[in-house]
Amino acid sequence: MVKMSVAYDGTAYCGFQRQRRRGEGDLVIVGDCGGVQLPTEGKVSIQEVLEAALGHVLGQAVKIAGAGRTDAGVHARGQVVSFQAAGLGFPVNRLPYAVNRLLPPDIVVTAAEEAPVGFHARFSARSKLYSYSIWRAPFPSPFLRRYTWHLPKPLDLEAMAEAAACLVGKQDFAAFHAAGRPVRDTVRNLMRCDLRPEGDILRLYVEADGFLYKMVRTIVGTLVAVGRGRWRPAHCREILASRDRRRAGPAAPPQGLCLEAVCYES
Amino acid sequence: MVKMSVAYDGTAYCGFQRQRRRGEGDLVIVGDCGGVQLPTEGKVSIQEVLEAALGHVLGQAVKIAGAGRTDAGVHARGQVVSFQAAGLGFPVNRLPYAVNRLLPPDIVVTAAEEAPVGFHARFSARSKLYSYSIWRAPFPSPFLRRYTWHLPKPLDLEAMAEAAACLVGKQDFAAFHAAGRPVRDTVRNLMRCDLRPEGDILRLYVEADGFLYKMVRTIVGTLVAVGRGRWRPAHCREILASRDRRRAGPAAPPQGLCLEAVCYES
Repeated sequence: MVKMSVAYDGTAYCGFQRQRRRGEGDLVIVGDCGGVQLPTEGKVSIQEVLEAALGHVLGQAVKIAGAGRTDAGVHARGQVVSFQAAGLGFPVNRLPYAVNRLLPPDIVVTAAEEAPVGFHARFSARSKLYSYSIWRAPFPSPFLRRYTWHLPKPLDLEAMAEAAACLVGKQDFAAFHAAGRPVRDTVRNLMRCDLRPEGDILRLYVEADGFLYKMVRTIVGTLVAVGRGRWRPAHCREILASRDRRRAGPAAPPQGLCLEAVCYES
Repeated sequence: MVKMSVAYDGTAYCGFQRQRRRGEGDLVIVGDCGGVQLPTEGKVSIQEVLEAALGHVLGQAVKIAGAGRTDAGVHARGQVVSFQAAGLGFPVNRLPYAVNRLLPPDIVVTAAEEAPVGFHARFSARSKLYSYSIWRAPFPSPFLRRYTWHLPKPLDLEAMAEAAACLVGKQDFAAFHAAGRPVRDTVRNLMRCDLRPEGDILRLYVEADGFLYKMVRTIVGTLVAVGRGRWRPAHCREILASRDRRRAGPAAPPQGLCLEAVCYES
């Protein structure tokens, strides 16, 4: 197996995962887009672009698996993908150079290495770390508009930090699970959920052993509702206990979200 | 007079300054583009977009002066413009909100205030501060490609800092003055020229009482030549003394450059 690290600006894509096309010109968005018809229709996926470039370099059809199925408009600094390839014909650490020559500038392969048989970018992952960036200045940023959620009004950061702490631990996150991608088990181990103010940017870091559909964005939307004074911090416990998606806050917009890193057993 | 601060992503523009159009559909690039026909042809200027938005909000033709005539692809976090307007009809600090509603998302007005009669964004400025960002990681960044120059090979930062120090002071910068915009006097007072490594980014800050055409980019190109070992640091003194543009390094690409701030007598 080959394990490859990828960074991308997700602005122009329908998400990481390939869309399933049904019938003639009839696009049905599945996977990250939750079976819902979105304005992402007609856009290509990161997966398709990577598979096309890898297929060209390796002279064989390549099917990749990604660690995180990032949504339309969501970014990655440390996405990990895995795939099987017979006889590369060159050292695996040269693969990024060869593939990057064929990729558009908003997708960049940053590393490649051999991984043990049975390695799978998603199933072998121990945890994934996402960041969510909020731009707090009075006016939007021309530079960060694709990478942040602009919230010019004051936020109570202490209340948000207290609410974030309520979410940490092995808990049932059904209330933070958007419809559209059914799963059997909604219990996840949230290892980290913290806020870091960095100048005009408020960065939230969320790490877990796995994520439900739109879970990070729903956590961010809920924390922002606390920060705006709509709920007190401890209300997050009631939201968790309810297991009812309608009790949590609205999902934050996609462009603030970035898959920072995927951790594996070393 | 009104004094207004503006931030912009210059990627999509031909530069700050309006282009002069000669004849039917025959675009001649002047000002920042140095009279040379560039691929910026047909692109609009920041100035034109701002004047159109201001004209609409104020119900009168507005002609603005900018502190820095940034080139095509160059950005600004703290550009300052000034203009005359008769009777705003609302408090001047509301102007950014009104104008931003009409501006594209890559141009943002961040402040507006009344300035004394005779104030001129360029001629009243005491100094301007530019930053230049170099992306030093082995692979390009999908997020910073519009805002950095990618230089993956090692740079001798100590040598670059020593060379930068040679440039500070009131000196004749004729060797760092690109053809295309003749000036009488090429002496400028360089108050600051220093390097700050910030993770994978190397940031150069250059402050002066005025800049010659492509002066910052030529300084950066020259410092990079030193960092690569092409010249020893003290060679910068010889370049200055020569007053010959052919002796300095090539101009660094525009996208790493950003007008950070303009200082006025307070």
